[in-house]
Amino acid sequence: MNATIAESSGLRADGRTADQLRPVTIERGWSAQAEGSALISFGGTKVLCTASFTNGVPRWLMGKGSGWVTAEYGMLPRSTNERMDRESVKGRVGGRTHEISRLIGRSLRAVVDTKALGENTIKIDCDVLQADGGTRTAAITGAFVALADAVEWGRDKGFIARRAAALTGTVAAVSVGIIDGTPMLDLAYVEDVKAETDMNVVTTGDGRFVEVQGTAEGAPFDRDELNALLDLAVGGTTELTRLQREILGR
Amino acid sequence: MNATIAESSGLRADGRTADQLRPVTIERGWSAQAEGSALISFGGTKVLCTASFTNGVPRWLMGKGSGWVTAEYGMLPRSTNERMDRESVKGRVGGRTHEISRLIGRSLRAVVDTKALGENTIKIDCDVLQADGGTRTAAITGAFVALADAVEWGRDKGFIARRAAALTGTVAAVSVGIIDGTPMLDLAYVEDVKAETDMNVVTTGDGRFVEVQGTAEGAPFDRDELNALLDLAVGGTTELTRLQREILGR
Amino acid sequence: MNATIAESSGLRADGRTADQLRPVTIERGWSAQAEGSALISFGGTKVLCTASFTNGVPRWLMGKGSGWVTAEYGMLPRSTNERMDRESVKGRVGGRTHEISRLIGRSLRAVVDTKALGENTIKIDCDVLQADGGTRTAAITGAFVALADAVEWGRDKGFIARRAAALTGTVAAVSVGIIDGTPMLDLAYVEDVKAETDMNVVTTGDGRFVEVQGTAEGAPFDRDELNALLDLAVGGTTELTRLQREILGR
Amino acid sequence: MNATIAESSGLRADGRTADQLRPVTIERGWSAQAEGSALISFGGTKVLCTASFTNGVPRWLMGKGSGWVTAEYGMLPRSTNERMDRESVKGRVGGRTHEISRLIGRSLRAVVDTKALGENTIKIDCDVLQADGGTRTAAITGAFVALADAVEWGRDKGFIARRAAALTGTVAAVSVGIIDGTPMLDLAYVEDVKAETDMNVVTTGDGRFVEVQGTAEGAPFDRDELNALLDLAVGGTTELTRLQREILGR
Amino acid sequence: MNATIAESSGLRADGRTADQLRPVTIERGWSAQAEGSALISFGGTKVLCTASFTNGVPRWLMGKGSGWVTAEYGMLPRSTNERMDRESVKGRVGGRTHEISRLIGRSLRAVVDTKALGENTIKIDCDVLQADGGTRTAAITGAFVALADAVEWGRDKGFIARRAAALTGTVAAVSVGIIDGTPMLDLAYVEDVKAETDMNVVTTGDGRFVEVQGTAEGAPFDRDELNALLDLAVGGTTELTRLQREILGR
Amino acid sequence: MNATIAESSGLRADGRTADQLRPVTIERGWSAQAEGSALISFGGTKVLCTASFTNGVPRWLMGKGSGWVTAEYGMLPRSTNERMDRESVKGRVGGRTHEISRLIGRSLRAVVDTKALGENTIKIDCDVLQADGGTRTAAITGAFVALADAVEWGRDKGFIARRAAALTGTVAAVSVGIIDGTPMLDLAYVEDVKAETDMNVVTTGDGRFVEVQGTAEGAPFDRDELNALLDLAVGGTTELTRLQREILGR
Repeated sequence: MNATIAESSGLRADGRTADQLRPVTIERGWSAQAEGSALISFGGTKVLCTASFTNGVPRWLMGKGSGWVTAEYGMLPRSTNERMDRESVKGRVGGRTHEISRLIGRSLRAVVDTKALGENTIKIDCDVLQADGGTRTAAITGAFVALADAVEWGRDKGFIARRAAALTGTVAAVSVGIIDGTPMLDLAYVEDVKAETDMNVVTTGDGRFVEVQGTAEGAPFDRDELNALLDLAVGGTTELTRLQREILGR
Repeated sequence: MNATIAESSGLRADGRTADQLRPVTIERGWSAQAEGSALISFGGTKVLCTASFTNGVPRWLMGKGSGWVTAEYGMLPRSTNERMDRESVKGRVGGRTHEISRLIGRSLRAVVDTKALGENTIKIDCDVLQADGGTRTAAITGAFVALADAVEWGRDKGFIARRAAALTGTVAAVSVGIIDGTPMLDLAYVEDVKAETDMNVVTTGDGRFVEVQGTAEGAPFDRDELNALLDLAVGGTTELTRLQREILGR
Repeated sequence: MNATIAESSGLRADGRTADQLRPVTIERGWSAQAEGSALISFGGTKVLCTASFTNGVPRWLMGKGSGWVTAEYGMLPRSTNERMDRESVKGRVGGRTHEISRLIGRSLRAVVDTKALGENTIKIDCDVLQADGGTRTAAITGAFVALADAVEWGRDKGFIARRAAALTGTVAAVSVGIIDGTPMLDLAYVEDVKAETDMNVVTTGDGRFVEVQGTAEGAPFDRDELNALLDLAVGGTTELTRLQREILGR
Repeated sequence: MNATIAESSGLRADGRTADQLRPVTIERGWSAQAEGSALISFGGTKVLCTASFTNGVPRWLMGKGSGWVTAEYGMLPRSTNERMDRESVKGRVGGRTHEISRLIGRSLRAVVDTKALGENTIKIDCDVLQADGGTRTAAITGAFVALADAVEWGRDKGFIARRAAALTGTVAAVSVGIIDGTPMLDLAYVEDVKAETDMNVVTTGDGRFVEVQGTAEGAPFDRDELNALLDLAVGGTTELTRLQREILGR
Repeated sequence: MNATIAESSGLRADGRTADQLRPVTIERGWSAQAEGSALISFGGTKVLCTASFTNGVPRWLMGKGSGWVTAEYGMLPRSTNERMDRESVKGRVGGRTHEISRLIGRSLRAVVDTKALGENTIKIDCDVLQADGGTRTAAITGAFVALADAVEWGRDKGFIARRAAALTGTVAAVSVGIIDGTPMLDLAYVEDVKAETDMNVVTTGDGRFVEVQGTAEGAPFDRDELNALLDLAVGGTTELTRLQREILGR
Repeated sequence: MNATIAESSGLRADGRTADQLRPVTIERGWSAQAEGSALISFGGTKVLCTASFTNGVPRWLMGKGSGWVTAEYGMLPRSTNERMDRESVKGRVGGRTHEISRLIGRSLRAVVDTKALGENTIKIDCDVLQADGGTRTAAITGAFVALADAVEWGRDKGFIARRAAALTGTVAAVSVGIIDGTPMLDLAYVEDVKAETDMNVVTTGDGRFVEVQGTAEGAPFDRDELNALLDLAVGGTTELTRLQREILGR
């Protein structure tokens, strides 16, 4: 793979090589209100992630000794190049929004031990302030930081048992895609619209898969292409994991 | 893989081997009203697929010489073991429904040449009459049959040019998952709820991928497990493709 | 009346006489999931009726020693000749749907002794898979079969007292109408759109009326016409009652 | 019938005989804004009926030379003894409301010649200010007066051809029911809740039927009871027709 | 101010002077159902106000020894010159409706001692039967009368302690505006649409302010204009207060 | 007033005097996507304001040579101390949100010459990222900066005539309130909840009033208190106006 990437370097509009992430920044504790928060940027994509901790669980989970983590995703109307109507005004949450909210929630729960969390609920909100491709993967990566701080908050307040390892690992996500036949990492919006195949990959910090969602936007893809995309993606999430750990001081 | 499957045979509640589909039946032309239709069964899962052909396209596509294929998925309230509330009564379409509708639409469009289709719209409806796991994969597989007949109808009526190859191939889908460490094909409901990893795979008739959606429900999965699941899935869609061709007389 | 019917015989598109039902079939126990079910056909009209039994009653009825039977009606989007939008997508249940759901519920409750039913709820779903006139009357007639089986199920499980006569009789329904001045039984869709007067009649097995809903679509109708329609309708429901009893083995 | 009624006189809470209407008043032209209006009372039931005339028809009817008459029914939240939630606040129109709106519209259209009306739309609103049984029948009876004035207004303004008989007759409605075995006319709320059978009858001024909607609330009813109810109802609508004509000066 | 008003007298379409209210009538106890009610007219504006008394409070207020007063505002579809769509049919309550409902509720609560009210809820409904400007101010003025009677009802029934002064005063409201440079009191609809500045003022019976809502519809207004409007408004509410007291017999 | 303020200085939690604004920052051009934007802070309150420019107007305004400016307000779910449900998830925009959106739109339109704007639409979005009192006044103040830049953008692109003065002035807003009897400027959240009277004042840059919205939360307020609040407010908007001009380089 690396040979191919080297050959295609210089192709990307922002000068990146095919296996290079955009500049990533994570502003931990951005919000003065939330129990955990992070403002994450993947290049021009900016997502505000907050984690709201509540002692107690929804009715259907009461008395089972388990906690709950869930997520909601949204976009500001002018986060995109063309203004979108608000979903609140349309009176319904769209399919794409639902889909991404569910993806974020599942991804985070993959590293949560709900028994160790105890009967507590953490609600993650990921709101896209500015969109330039990869909003769902930036959201997952930032949400993990907010989640980690909310868990810490719950431990400090005594809602979570001191020794309980409520988090069993870390989780990060990145998009990959095939553009003009070349697999590339972390697509910006102008790349995303040209991609023949588009894939979002969520991994744990030890490199195992939590979600693999690949879609042929143009021609179907074969097994070799799938493998090349997975290699690129794991390279990206490895780097994001390193950044998360650095920021969380672990 | 095959060795492993042989060893685990006999484990499944319905006596199947790990790489075996449930009995599949496709009743082509079930509906007297629709331009194309199929009642498909994957074991206890029964989905009624209809294709509605309209000459013309939505406003945003007018005058571009391209057609449109879209899909909607639904479940009858008592298709499941516990009755669900109707989404019409709740006043909103749920996230899972949206997600599956979008998946079916994307999967079908992967084998549609919208230019060759001309300014015509085909709307696919997949309604689950009885659910026993794999409803979305049965829906895609049945929907292709309904779509093929609707395209034929459009050609007979002169809405589609006689020589236009509006369909560039066939498409079929199947679920796979890992249960107690063993990868298995075409999960029934009782298997699905136990699966650590759950994957839906959509392929074209020539074995390339249209969608790969893998989710770790329990522990994350590694690259070997992912490969084993993909092998099983391609085996399953190959068999479903053969059945589709037989029924369509191609 | 009979003279008139004889004279007009041969007029109907499908060769029926004015006082003849379309072929009626009832597939009892169609659903593997529901406590009672029937797939009923009145000619080209096919309705799937399921009965869902729940031990317990809604909050407003708790502690009164009475049960509850209610119904919901729906149509698949392509059950009709022109595809209709889904009510779930429109975000609201339409007036006609509401009206028919209420009619089915009232009709069934007319033969339910809610005290004998005990604090149990039976929810009936009638979903039209294919529509060719008379969907509401087919729904009522099929729903009774599903209801009877759900009551039996509740008795077998011990939720209903063994000797309690939760059902006080049977109920069946048929449509009648005046076309070109001739009263006719069980209108198919092509007849329904031409009818000057349209009436739905629900009777108990002993021939008494539960519902009489007559509407002048064109010219108002006089007392003689009303009488002729009622005669025809009672003839039809008598035959449907006989079929229900045969199928239920009573 | 009359004998029976005489015998049962004195039974009714308000001193009426079984075949007697409550005091009926119609305040024609109540609204300063609408093209036609009437505030009608059937005893304690008060309904404000307005008719809004628009030159032009909905898109689906354009260019066909026909007009349209439609109706909407509503209740003020505290028109009833217990306050009801507003349907606007609940975000959906209930089944009963839909059903009555449709009934009023159909009843009025029975005496409208849409060709003679020309491409004009009349929208009727019937809002219950105070409810004491029979709101739908009062609404129909009052709505006819509002409709007649709106037609006259359209003729005065030149939207309807001078000689066109846009109205082919008059229409009025009344409820009847069986209480403790006795058929009674124009049920007040306290009577309505006790009725075993409840029927709403809409007739034209010449005594023919537009709608007959009979429902067994308790025991099913037989043919004799049905006939007795129809006799009573026709007596009632005959009197209401007389009153409408008097008020309209015809 | 008075000089200016005198000079401009004769300017208003209905012959009023600038500081004159339209004829105001309050029909106390209009509704036979509600615990308190008033049909109030400000000229052509007619609003039906009802007060519904419930012993008990919403869940969030239980056990605190305080009561609750809230309000909802609505307009009949043909209360206006052009028919408006029903908010129930549109499926959502509009911004203006919400805003006015909240204003009425706040205004009434300004003179309610919720402790003295005890754990009781009074819900006010203000429905505009006919609109000719000033509907919100007429609604507040009439609602106070309905509220006062509902409080009295609660005291008679023993739900409110005999000596408790649940009402600490009276409340009334009026609109003022600047038209062609002249400040005017109680604008009719034709005046309202021409006003450069529009202000709604709510005062207690002793002349203090509960709400002041001034809006520049055209040019911004200066401090002198603001003062002139406040003077006019207080004159108006003083007169309305006198009328309320007279009608309530205080 | 100043004497009073001096005496009460030191009372405020954050050390401000009664007539002092919180630190105000405006980050002009925050968004890379919008035609105009500003991230404004009033102390802990942070609002992202974007202006979306569209050439063309809504259907109801076409062909009249006038433009349109409108606004929408929203809050991120965890902008507040307790997480709020999303309005998109609830399926309806709340009353408070509607009210503030309308206020922002009216305030901006007060300084827009819609004829000079030409047939162009500017849509303002104000999204609260963090809330600590005064979100609506910060939104108006920031929205003006975004609006000014969007107008400039339209002029640069040639959509607005070069010499047209589409903006006739500037607009800014601030809250004032009475706490423990002392009038105070620019209330933080902890102050807002204690205020007896709460007022939002919008002025143009030359100190005239666009909106005055005063509400007695506790005891009604008299004319002297109203005057004191207006004095404070005008002092605040004068300072905000100066800051807007500095940032816009005018």
